[in-house]
Amino acid sequence: MSQGNGEAYQRLFQHGGDINSAQAAFPEAPRPWIDLSTGINAVPYPIPDLPPERWTRLPSPAEIAALQAVAAARYRARAEEVVVAPGTQALIQLLPRLFPARRVAILGPTYSGHEKAWDAAGAQVQDIRRPEDAEGPLVIVNPNNPDGRRLPVATLRGLARDSRLLVIDEAFADFEPDSLAADPPPNTVVLRSFGKTYGLAGLRLGFAIARAPLAERLRAALGAWAVSGPALEIGARALADDAWLKATREGLEEDARWLDGVLVKAGYEIVGGTLLFRLAARPDAAAAFAALGRHGVLTRPFAARPDWLRFGLPARDDRARVQAALFAPA
Amino acid sequence: MSQGNGEAYQRLFQHGGDINSAQAAFPEAPRPWIDLSTGINAVPYPIPDLPPERWTRLPSPAEIAALQAVAAARYRARAEEVVVAPGTQALIQLLPRLFPARRVAILGPTYSGHEKAWDAAGAQVQDIRRPEDAEGPLVIVNPNNPDGRRLPVATLRGLARDSRLLVIDEAFADFEPDSLAADPPPNTVVLRSFGKTYGLAGLRLGFAIARAPLAERLRAALGAWAVSGPALEIGARALADDAWLKATREGLEEDARWLDGVLVKAGYEIVGGTLLFRLAARPDAAAAFAALGRHGVLTRPFAARPDWLRFGLPARDDRARVQAALFAPA
Repeated sequence: MSQGNGEAYQRLFQHGGDINSAQAAFPEAPRPWIDLSTGINAVPYPIPDLPPERWTRLPSPAEIAALQAVAAARYRARAEEVVVAPGTQALIQLLPRLFPARRVAILGPTYSGHEKAWDAAGAQVQDIRRPEDAEGPLVIVNPNNPDGRRLPVATLRGLARDSRLLVIDEAFADFEPDSLAADPPPNTVVLRSFGKTYGLAGLRLGFAIARAPLAERLRAALGAWAVSGPALEIGARALADDAWLKATREGLEEDARWLDGVLVKAGYEIVGGTLLFRLAARPDAAAAFAALGRHGVLTRPFAARPDWLRFGLPARDDRARVQAALFAPA
Repeated sequence: MSQGNGEAYQRLFQHGGDINSAQAAFPEAPRPWIDLSTGINAVPYPIPDLPPERWTRLPSPAEIAALQAVAAARYRARAEEVVVAPGTQALIQLLPRLFPARRVAILGPTYSGHEKAWDAAGAQVQDIRRPEDAEGPLVIVNPNNPDGRRLPVATLRGLARDSRLLVIDEAFADFEPDSLAADPPPNTVVLRSFGKTYGLAGLRLGFAIARAPLAERLRAALGAWAVSGPALEIGARALADDAWLKATREGLEEDARWLDGVLVKAGYEIVGGTLLFRLAARPDAAAAFAALGRHGVLTRPFAARPDWLRFGLPARDDRARVQAALFAPA
């Protein structure tokens, strides 16, 4: 493998979805790539015809309010506590600038975006294993990515303090029974992702849910035109579509059963996950990652855990290729 | 007029494009409204069919790099100095957080978004009339909105200091002969808007142009997925389309001649502007604003200058209604 391939290969350990690096790292792999390296639903919400004004005009306060109301109903939140944002990553980038802290604790191991954002803003990041070890600001991804660890809402609520910022990233909570969104404690920012469940990561839409004064600070920092017109329109339609979400849940449940079954047959242990990704363990997972890559199947490896691979749920049409890749001779 | 109408009416003095408030302030006005209250081109770049991946996948570094290269060619800038952002307003919101300052000077009167962003971040804002009156960080909109005031590039270059942040907002510079984008001085951030010239304000796309270390700080603060897939695709196509831009310039030149002609006939003096808006003066402009509103034509009034109205350039199909509204008896 050339040095160039080596660099691209290393990038695949940093975050999912980097098909360009996958192609560079595995130039001989058959195409198209099957991307199981993210937790993005492979069956997207259908893009409707968009009124031309959504492209041409500045997004209006009324359009933003309409999406806030629909999102509030979906997340069982109060509309005035919902903040519309261009993706949760934009909020993750914003929080350290808006609430500067000398030190922040993150319940790890977890999605690295939080650490990167706080680190870039000059905070000292503590990677903790028990939430009670945090003294100041605290970030928890719940359910956690990649291992699906879940903390009960009551436990999270007990971690809230007037004196600390508490960030609960519910990026993968859409199919969970509980959420802090309905009643966020004081000084708590709940993050909800749109693009993962709805399979529209390119749209850039996400939400913060927080009590009114905090929500208002986030809105002011984002500005009046942070979210695109297409995102406002598509988000409002998709989040109001109960039938689509119900069918999606049923489809993902079936997909997860299928994937868990073939992974177990291929010698993996399922160690966690959500309806949008499965975390699987096998002693030689790092080698298995490379073998899958040579077959054009991109999964998500972890440098610190060479026994782990995270698998997104494949589309039905991709099952045969995924299965063949999993059982191909190394 | 009811109190509710009064509040909506007041909002029309704060920024353009607020059709909901216009409808509330002038409930009897004929519809559809003709919105001349912004500097957004009424003839948008045509929305192409978008590859599904632009909606479904996270925007990739390669796609961002491709748009950077096209934008660099359009603005005659260096690709490594171009920062892709979800609209220049997002950059305007970001700058005060990224470069905290006790005090900032803004060459006024101008677009109020800069003052609001610095004020919200806790800076003391000085509204200055001569750039040499600034001591610390300095913001200049060039050409200026609403009066079209232009400072020569050499003058702007002379204002750059290693010790100060200089923000040159070139939101309306696409048809100007000169720009700082080709060679930004040290510690200078040049802002270029996409949505105005291309008539796609809902897309949320804009650029900062700055020397490499500064550009890199802006990119890091925005994060890897700040701009939507559709914006990356449409921006790259539109900014590479020389023929469209040439035809647009010729169309806007003709539109500006027509609008200036009818405004002068209607008793206005043209006191400034660009190819995307005209600033017109008449002693009773505030009353004229209300009269135009009653005819469903929204323009941009200014509380501090009751003799000014700013007019966007109407689409050809709207000329007859605009002309009739301008000459209707009060």
